Amino acid sequence: MILAVDAMGGDKAPLEPCRGAIMACQMDSSLQVALVGDASKMSSFLDEAPAEVRKRIHLVHTDEFISMDESPSVSIRKKRNSSMRLAMEMVRVKDAEAVISAGNTGAIVAGGILVLGRIPGIDRPGLGVPIATLSSRVSLLLDVGATVRCKPINLTQFALMGSIYMKSLVGVSDPTVALLSNGEEDIKGDDVVLQAREMLKASSLNFVGYVEGKDVPLGTTDVVVCDGYTGNVLLKFGEGLGEGVMNLMKEEISKSFLPKVGLLFMLPMLKKLHYRFDYERHGGTPLLGVRGTVIKAHGRSRAKAICNALMVARDFVARRGVQTIEDELAKGGI
Amino acid sequence: MILAVDAMGGDKAPLEPCRGAIMACQMDSSLQVALVGDASKMSSFLDEAPAEVRKRIHLVHTDEFISMDESPSVSIRKKRNSSMRLAMEMVRVKDAEAVISAGNTGAIVAGGILVLGRIPGIDRPGLGVPIATLSSRVSLLLDVGATVRCKPINLTQFALMGSIYMKSLVGVSDPTVALLSNGEEDIKGDDVVLQAREMLKASSLNFVGYVEGKDVPLGTTDVVVCDGYTGNVLLKFGEGLGEGVMNLMKEEISKSFLPKVGLLFMLPMLKKLHYRFDYERHGGTPLLGVRGTVIKAHGRSRAKAICNALMVARDFVARRGVQTIEDELAKGGI
Repeated sequence: MILAVDAMGGDKAPLEPCRGAIMACQMDSSLQVALVGDASKMSSFLDEAPAEVRKRIHLVHTDEFISMDESPSVSIRKKRNSSMRLAMEMVRVKDAEAVISAGNTGAIVAGGILVLGRIPGIDRPGLGVPIATLSSRVSLLLDVGATVRCKPINLTQFALMGSIYMKSLVGVSDPTVALLSNGEEDIKGDDVVLQAREMLKASSLNFVGYVEGKDVPLGTTDVVVCDGYTGNVLLKFGEGLGEGVMNLMKEEISKSFLPKVGLLFMLPMLKKLHYRFDYERHGGTPLLGVRGTVIKAHGRSRAKAICNALMVARDFVARRGVQTIEDELAKGGI
Repeated sequence: MILAVDAMGGDKAPLEPCRGAIMACQMDSSLQVALVGDASKMSSFLDEAPAEVRKRIHLVHTDEFISMDESPSVSIRKKRNSSMRLAMEMVRVKDAEAVISAGNTGAIVAGGILVLGRIPGIDRPGLGVPIATLSSRVSLLLDVGATVRCKPINLTQFALMGSIYMKSLVGVSDPTVALLSNGEEDIKGDDVVLQAREMLKASSLNFVGYVEGKDVPLGTTDVVVCDGYTGNVLLKFGEGLGEGVMNLMKEEISKSFLPKVGLLFMLPMLKKLHYRFDYERHGGTPLLGVRGTVIKAHGRSRAKAICNALMVARDFVARRGVQTIEDELAKGGI
């Protein structure tokens, strides 16, 4: 299986994408990775790789790339030789089975629509991120940034894709689906959420109504649907809180001896907690609704996160993720 | 100072509002509280109070109240004898200096506008909640649920009121103000956030641009502005995560002996952490933009939270919160 990596995307590019590709190829001997980017910058990073791994990593050279603050729709259209666009074209012409990028989210979404096209029945794609919750359940939160503000139909389509994802790709039978709102009562929500609720009530999904912000970390339902603005803010809030609390603990511990002794004893538990919220472990978010496997990695991704995004891509391809969504939608939609 | 409490509002009414009133009157001997609600249900709860405290608590009887799932605008209009409406009327006719309610948020907002009226220059009020952050800073997050979806002008007015609040009522000189968005780059945000950003850039506020979700717990700026839907979801997400982590820790600790020993040593630090995020400690959220002091308490408020909401109300009145916002707005607005 060949996977294409936009090696110029993300804050740590191209070093970390290169290292992530090596790591992934070491973990899975059936994997080949095409690193799309500035070959002169990448080649030295690949010297670290064992010969057997190195030969499964291919360099696709380009000196054009899309930066984080460029207009998504303009850059993906005009920069035909950008690393992101080229990596997506590889998927379109079937030179690669999936594309992974830690770059400009808007450009990834625009590129997915422009280069790969939408799945029939889907108006706007959604980024679905599996959220580790405090229950044993992993919930799928979508959208987390593909479609900033949504119409009711976008939310209902996210609900449908999220449900298919959890059922067919994760193996949850009859997944519960909820709409995120500013309260559980039916009177809450604005016109968009309210209309989406009525549409979902009339659907065949296992729709349980509204959930509140608190239900996301508690893992109340299998799928939580919201617009991309809210989902993105929420995801990053959790991330900031997690990192901040860890830093604060370290700081407190450095101040005195007593908590240091305590930490020693609590270490196994804290590690377990951190493991649940470690985004590097999950690392990749599939862009649901386009006709090709597109995995968005975190902008701050290091090698481990890129490697995990490659594993997410591999599994999504192996489980025929795109085809499954397309087939299920063709069967009747909502 | 007389403060009116909607004693029938919230999940634990009227017991906890009664207990909260007793607690507050014990803490501050200059305080009087008017408990508006079903006198037959409340009177027995007041037997707990010492005589000196009891005589400063007045019962205002009514048997009508607004429940959590009623339509806000309809209920506040039609239920003229509801505990919430009566408590607000007391502020309007100056029988009380402030109103505190843990009831239906929408009805509190609708009641504030209908009974007390808006401050000139403000189209929609905002609920501003002081957020304990991981830095030493307390940030003001608004709106957290008064105006579910906003126009750009609403967001700019929240920014203005938030800035006045932090400067004049908290004592932060030249407070920094940010707009919450799905990324720091200027290309992020939808039309609403984008237009608000341009308006705020042209204003006299110390506007620093966009912040992301992660900046909220990190306390990057003094004021964080967003629509009421997003703010509400965010606030409750943090709440759920905090409670959930505490529960998970308790659960892990109950399983084995080692972490229990650790906890003993870490207890002072954990208490400090919990103290930062304990919403009961803050307890009250002022509704900014109406011509009267309206403090929203959490729907799940127990006595301690109600007591703290009364203290927030007392301080807001003592610092002439409403008048200060009105005066500053009259000076020129944005």
